[in-house]
Amino acid sequence: MQEEQKKLSLEPYKGTRDFYPEEMFVQNYIFSKMRAVVQRYGYVEYAASILEETALYHAKSGEEIINEQTYSFTDRGGRDVTIRPEMTPTVARMVARKRKELAFPLRWYSIPNLFRYERPQRGRLREHWQLNVDMFGAEGVEADAEVVAIASDIMKAFGASEKNFEVRINSRVLVNFLLREQLGLSPDDAHKISKLIDRKAKMPDDEFRVQAQAITGERMAELMDFLEAGTLQNFSKQLADHKSSRDLGRVITSLQERGVTNVVFSPALMRGFDYYTGTVFEVFDVSPLNNRSLFGGGRYDDLVGIFGVDKVPGVGFGMGDVTMRDYLETYKLLPKYKSSTHIYLCRLDDEQIPFIEELANYLRQQGINTGIDYSGRKLATQIKTAERQGIPYIICVGEEEARTRVFKLKNLATHEEKNVKLEDLPATMSHNILTPKV
Amino acid sequence: MQEEQKKLSLEPYKGTRDFYPEEMFVQNYIFSKMRAVVQRYGYVEYAASILEETALYHAKSGEEIINEQTYSFTDRGGRDVTIRPEMTPTVARMVARKRKELAFPLRWYSIPNLFRYERPQRGRLREHWQLNVDMFGAEGVEADAEVVAIASDIMKAFGASEKNFEVRINSRVLVNFLLREQLGLSPDDAHKISKLIDRKAKMPDDEFRVQAQAITGERMAELMDFLEAGTLQNFSKQLADHKSSRDLGRVITSLQERGVTNVVFSPALMRGFDYYTGTVFEVFDVSPLNNRSLFGGGRYDDLVGIFGVDKVPGVGFGMGDVTMRDYLETYKLLPKYKSSTHIYLCRLDDEQIPFIEELANYLRQQGINTGIDYSGRKLATQIKTAERQGIPYIICVGEEEARTRVFKLKNLATHEEKNVKLEDLPATMSHNILTPKV
Repeated sequence: MQEEQKKLSLEPYKGTRDFYPEEMFVQNYIFSKMRAVVQRYGYVEYAASILEETALYHAKSGEEIINEQTYSFTDRGGRDVTIRPEMTPTVARMVARKRKELAFPLRWYSIPNLFRYERPQRGRLREHWQLNVDMFGAEGVEADAEVVAIASDIMKAFGASEKNFEVRINSRVLVNFLLREQLGLSPDDAHKISKLIDRKAKMPDDEFRVQAQAITGERMAELMDFLEAGTLQNFSKQLADHKSSRDLGRVITSLQERGVTNVVFSPALMRGFDYYTGTVFEVFDVSPLNNRSLFGGGRYDDLVGIFGVDKVPGVGFGMGDVTMRDYLETYKLLPKYKSSTHIYLCRLDDEQIPFIEELANYLRQQGINTGIDYSGRKLATQIKTAERQGIPYIICVGEEEARTRVFKLKNLATHEEKNVKLEDLPATMSHNILTPKV
Repeated sequence: MQEEQKKLSLEPYKGTRDFYPEEMFVQNYIFSKMRAVVQRYGYVEYAASILEETALYHAKSGEEIINEQTYSFTDRGGRDVTIRPEMTPTVARMVARKRKELAFPLRWYSIPNLFRYERPQRGRLREHWQLNVDMFGAEGVEADAEVVAIASDIMKAFGASEKNFEVRINSRVLVNFLLREQLGLSPDDAHKISKLIDRKAKMPDDEFRVQAQAITGERMAELMDFLEAGTLQNFSKQLADHKSSRDLGRVITSLQERGVTNVVFSPALMRGFDYYTGTVFEVFDVSPLNNRSLFGGGRYDDLVGIFGVDKVPGVGFGMGDVTMRDYLETYKLLPKYKSSTHIYLCRLDDEQIPFIEELANYLRQQGINTGIDYSGRKLATQIKTAERQGIPYIICVGEEEARTRVFKLKNLATHEEKNVKLEDLPATMSHNILTPKV
């Protein structure tokens, strides 16, 4: 028994995190900013279980994810289950399940945790949380523009300026039109080339050209013209006149009107998942030291249909906490830890316990989050505890304070002390404390 | 492919729930009340991954849970992992992991989801959420009393009156003293009899007596005296003088001083988990129709020690969402659904889109959560959508509204309409809308 006990690990499971209060504070800060923005746009929260039947992921996710990256197992009743690697299949299932009762268009958001089995590295862990924002039942370019605008607004709500990120945008319809209609590729070749384009940024240019040439043959030049177009204005007339490029142009214009001016047309942007059917976009960190995709999304009009029900158009994005936290750290946009506890009551001796209970009760009724030190340790240690826990105020209660009901209210950050009467404590503090979030 | 698609289930995995916005609203209501109370008492939030290495649960959980009820599997790297069935082992691990950096006493809370493989039934699902409230590093009766008082305060924050529930309390130290010292039972027999007492309420009285007799023999009468004592005052002098019964008396007195007057000494209360070492308590629904345990907790001073580090005393409880939701439904204490979206903008025709975007932008900047109907459907359908989604206000924008900037603000619950100028909208609405929670 002793031997077994010694082996018990103190670490969280590989690729996952413990959220001590300081980390939880950051997590809650990130989530609260996300929530504030999406609720401003009229999105309401939903959620679901982290376990789904495995079959849900076979239909439309990218193959790599299903085969090698899921946490899948068989439950004690013989059901094949998977810990969700993404939220989109779940939300599509939920929409399909109640499609007859729901009033469309839906504006929905959720902040689920997701699991992928992979080697943990910077910005990628086995478990992460991801804001999912989706609009269902709306087809127009306004819906696409709104969703991208929300993504941009969240970045700005975190304090990021348009200099520090970039919205890259493309259209799957446009790419399909180019590959199938213009270049005349077979569905299979079109799929292959789009997967190749998806990897373009991560491979040497020569290698890309050799592989692309093998698929596109004599139409290679047209593909390269598209990929190097830079803006929609450089398109051939045929491409420029197609509905998909006009729609994409309208999304970009609408975004500019909404004040999102860092939008860049990116013909090579594909997004990993196969289920996208229209606009796709990604938000990039443009810092030369850290140039990478932060998150993205797009339109997926066929996903709800895989459940054998009528199609419901959808557009949305997912924004992960690990990547965002790295980004906010890089740009020094994270706030300093502040305990949700406003005041800590210390005492000189045990005789003050009944009075301290009464004082705490009074403060709590006034909306002040109040902790009491019951430890019986010396005063300096009690104060140190409050300080180390990031609690902004303390009061030390001795015989005199209990009698006079006048206290030295000490601000632990500034070390200021102020004599305050019992009944003035709430007002004195409320100028200085955050309103509790609940 | 078609065939496979037809089989795709629309239901959530067995024993788990989909939280559509209406259910999420209830869930968020329950969580926000829990948070408000525990933060008032100075508890700060932490969290951890839902996956832990399986070894964590072998050391101290009840045996039934480990062997038959966990979701355990081997990951792709050969690690044995378990989806957490309870939070206490995790929080004990976290405390042990950073015990040298943490400033004790800690007041911590979390609202994790937990999984148990069992047959779903009323009040018991495979996945539920559970508020966990724990104090670490404090040994006195004040800590025990505070934790029980919080449990009671949460019930009251939900609107439950002391008539509708009861706090049952006992002491493991007291029971151990009785069984080991007074009755002279071996550790093994003491464990057996405590497990038997734990099941007492669920078995015929005769059967309990036969089984208890077999273990306690001639000391059976003393056991029954204890179990039928009713109050601590009825104890034999030896039992009454023992520190454990004096401590328990002090916890009960302290609770009464804190305004918790529905506390009942319950000698048969054991709690399932083996890790409790002192005070144990349970909150019961006392309605004759629904008499049952709602939730509970207690003191566990040895749990952190299983990691091979110094002991850290702990006391806390877990309060599940499924049981609480049932309880609140029974007593009609759940609020009516209200969307987090405050207003929905409808339009007569597409020409108003630019003006609507501008209006929405203005309202959002004023802190009003604003949705737009982009569907292009007829006005009655747009209004119906807002109504069915529980959005309290609508504005319909036509050519005249865009020109005059005066709107008919319609309250969808009361059907009142009021002409309001653009600049007066936020003030007119802010008297009627909830302040956003973020």
